Amino acid sequence: MNQIDMDKIVAHCKNTGFIFPGSEIYGGLANSWDYGPLGIELKNNIKKLWWEKFIQNRINSFGIDCAILMNPKVWEASGHVASFSDPLIDCKECKSRFRADNLISSYSNNNVNPDLLSKDEMYKYILENKIPCPVCKKSNFTPIREFNLLFQTHRGVTKESQQDIYLRPETAQGQYVNFLNVQRTMRAKLPFGIGQIGKAFRNEITPGNFTFRQIEFEQMEYQFFCREGEDEKYYKEFKQISKDFFVSLGIPEDKLKFHDHDKLAFYAKAACDLYYKFPFGWDEVNGIHNRTNYDLTRHQQYSGKNLQYLDPVTNEKFIPYVIENSYGLDRAILAVICNSYDVETLPDGDTREIMHILPKLAPYKVAILPLVKKDLSEKALQLYSSISQKFRTVYDDTGSIGKRYRRQDQIGTPLCITIDYDTLNDNSVTVRDRDSMKQIRLNIDTLEDYINKIVK
Amino acid sequence: MNQIDMDKIVAHCKNTGFIFPGSEIYGGLANSWDYGPLGIELKNNIKKLWWEKFIQNRINSFGIDCAILMNPKVWEASGHVASFSDPLIDCKECKSRFRADNLISSYSNNNVNPDLLSKDEMYKYILENKIPCPVCKKSNFTPIREFNLLFQTHRGVTKESQQDIYLRPETAQGQYVNFLNVQRTMRAKLPFGIGQIGKAFRNEITPGNFTFRQIEFEQMEYQFFCREGEDEKYYKEFKQISKDFFVSLGIPEDKLKFHDHDKLAFYAKAACDLYYKFPFGWDEVNGIHNRTNYDLTRHQQYSGKNLQYLDPVTNEKFIPYVIENSYGLDRAILAVICNSYDVETLPDGDTREIMHILPKLAPYKVAILPLVKKDLSEKALQLYSSISQKFRTVYDDTGSIGKRYRRQDQIGTPLCITIDYDTLNDNSVTVRDRDSMKQIRLNIDTLEDYINKIVK
Repeated sequence: MNQIDMDKIVAHCKNTGFIFPGSEIYGGLANSWDYGPLGIELKNNIKKLWWEKFIQNRINSFGIDCAILMNPKVWEASGHVASFSDPLIDCKECKSRFRADNLISSYSNNNVNPDLLSKDEMYKYILENKIPCPVCKKSNFTPIREFNLLFQTHRGVTKESQQDIYLRPETAQGQYVNFLNVQRTMRAKLPFGIGQIGKAFRNEITPGNFTFRQIEFEQMEYQFFCREGEDEKYYKEFKQISKDFFVSLGIPEDKLKFHDHDKLAFYAKAACDLYYKFPFGWDEVNGIHNRTNYDLTRHQQYSGKNLQYLDPVTNEKFIPYVIENSYGLDRAILAVICNSYDVETLPDGDTREIMHILPKLAPYKVAILPLVKKDLSEKALQLYSSISQKFRTVYDDTGSIGKRYRRQDQIGTPLCITIDYDTLNDNSVTVRDRDSMKQIRLNIDTLEDYINKIVK
Repeated sequence: MNQIDMDKIVAHCKNTGFIFPGSEIYGGLANSWDYGPLGIELKNNIKKLWWEKFIQNRINSFGIDCAILMNPKVWEASGHVASFSDPLIDCKECKSRFRADNLISSYSNNNVNPDLLSKDEMYKYILENKIPCPVCKKSNFTPIREFNLLFQTHRGVTKESQQDIYLRPETAQGQYVNFLNVQRTMRAKLPFGIGQIGKAFRNEITPGNFTFRQIEFEQMEYQFFCREGEDEKYYKEFKQISKDFFVSLGIPEDKLKFHDHDKLAFYAKAACDLYYKFPFGWDEVNGIHNRTNYDLTRHQQYSGKNLQYLDPVTNEKFIPYVIENSYGLDRAILAVICNSYDVETLPDGDTREIMHILPKLAPYKVAILPLVKKDLSEKALQLYSSISQKFRTVYDDTGSIGKRYRRQDQIGTPLCITIDYDTLNDNSVTVRDRDSMKQIRLNIDTLEDYINKIVK
């Protein structure tokens, strides 16, 4: 595989219909992105896998889907209103604005970890090292100020009746706030988990690296409630599960590594991130946190509702521990795209763009290609209507067959089915494999079983 | 079926885990709702059906998934910034606030259609008829004022750098803004469609009727692009498709009717809503609009980008017509819930709560019930692990078997599988049907095929 850089991947995603710049005809908006016809299929496939793994195939696991707009007290209890902020610093010379922690990381080539520094220590480090402004190269900065990342909006119609509310910056609080509702209605006994997939919003000063950091993104979060004492065992277990999940998306193990947090929140017992080796470097795709009983305790305090669990055997009452499993859906998609995109040199010296995406994740499973449009369209469309009832299928009757194969390679379609004149006589078709480019001849009646075997 | 009122349905949804009040432990927020473990499964099942029908099984159909936060110029072009508003009126006596159009509809028992009245005409009608305030019964109102329904927020971190942006009030503009991107990357030829499922937000003054009207809701929108002249044919076709879709959710035809709009937007050629007979009256679940070439023309004007389609045969350039198909996902879910919930009197005089939800939509397909916990759990859990790999399955080992059947009836599980002592000897289980309550004996090896037949 050649060294693939991000620009090439961004261009590929845009040209083939995976991901478009958001509001593109209006010049975009803050690095936002829209999933195109292929991107949304890949996204749905990954969501489905996650849901099966965390909700459907685990006993005592429950899904929920909460409103993005929550009562603002939720974010007071969670601490987001008071301290969900980025340390920002301005260049007095050229007026550019930066995250102070990012300035320090890149200046020190990641040798200094700003997470371990206070705001004052960061400022001192910047002054002492005369870190230059990345834009104008001078070193004349304002002090560091904290800017809250919550998007605020207003519920109600007149100034006097308005209530300040927030776009949720994470989905997790929905699980905490509904802990009792789920426990009660599902008659759930510890340990049990609640999962949710949904959008979250952060007013990031520096979105970037394509879809990696956006102001609007989608999370798949699984909150696992357990007894104190069992928490360390489950924390370990979920580390393995997260690695397994990314391996099940086709990511090789040597492109994954754990990164333990250098500094823990005061309430946390353990925290780590799973990193994937993106073309722009190792970065987080998943976080696992042993949050102790902090979140439910805070919500009990702020809501005045008793959030204790009553143990049906011992009759003890206590607030459960939480192991948080937070998956970035957009990051999982980006990892799969980066991992599968390649430009291959063929035996004849020609090259082809290809996405070696796992068949179960591929946007289209099958392409139906009539060799000649005029005579074979009827038969090909017939086949399309029956196959497309079962599998996501694309129909293409334009251009040479070689060109059409290349198009499907480009978007990762595992199987191309070509209808030719023999098909009209013997009901057989040519089935071409994306990766090996080998072709076999199959009877149409056996296609469904064959496709099923490949894509499952 | 008894007359079921909404209070009963709301309570049922809350007690069984379909839908909880949003942020409930904090006293809620503006009538927002969270889908619980059963509600999200039902929601996902309906989304999947819609996606299959509109995106997967139609040729020349493409999905997308756009950011909720779009460039604010999108909403200038669409007209939402200027005129997406509700006519509000205040009672001077008790300070309550109402929608003027709603006041008129309910005062006239729907005999006067406020959609046909201008703001001044509405005000005149209220004065002339001395419509009383629904709260204090006096009739002393302020003039009518228009309040914009867009939720506004701010992108950026300091006052001077902030940009006002909006939470999208509909998903449709994402399809329009990406018309060229999709057309180009999919090499799509007219007619073709672009669909999207996602959240939208409206700062409604009077949310209500459970999940029917919320400030945050989910839409399934399909925008169909075609040539002028073909638009009327497709408009008709999509009316039939929308009815078929709701029938495929189990809604009987006599609970569905079309309502043509009395007043059309100046650019629209035709518009109708599909109404479902909710317990609170007939109301909209789907809208179909022939929007002519208005939307793309506006975006061409406001963006300065050429949004014309080049006909590959005639070489003509023109802006396509759009038939909009807008499905309220929360309303489809509510219709299915209202339609399937019942309290039945059994032959022995007892009653049971039941949801006659179609098996393909049911949150759980199968319940696994060991007759006796102590001796039969091992076998039952074994069966649970294998069945839950294929079907959404619930495990219940608490309470008498009759009580457990009732619980599954309540939440609409089509099949209950009971493991008893005979199972240990002959590998057979009892399979009970929700609707008929009939029981049959089946071998475990034949279960998968049997369940498949029922739930597909």
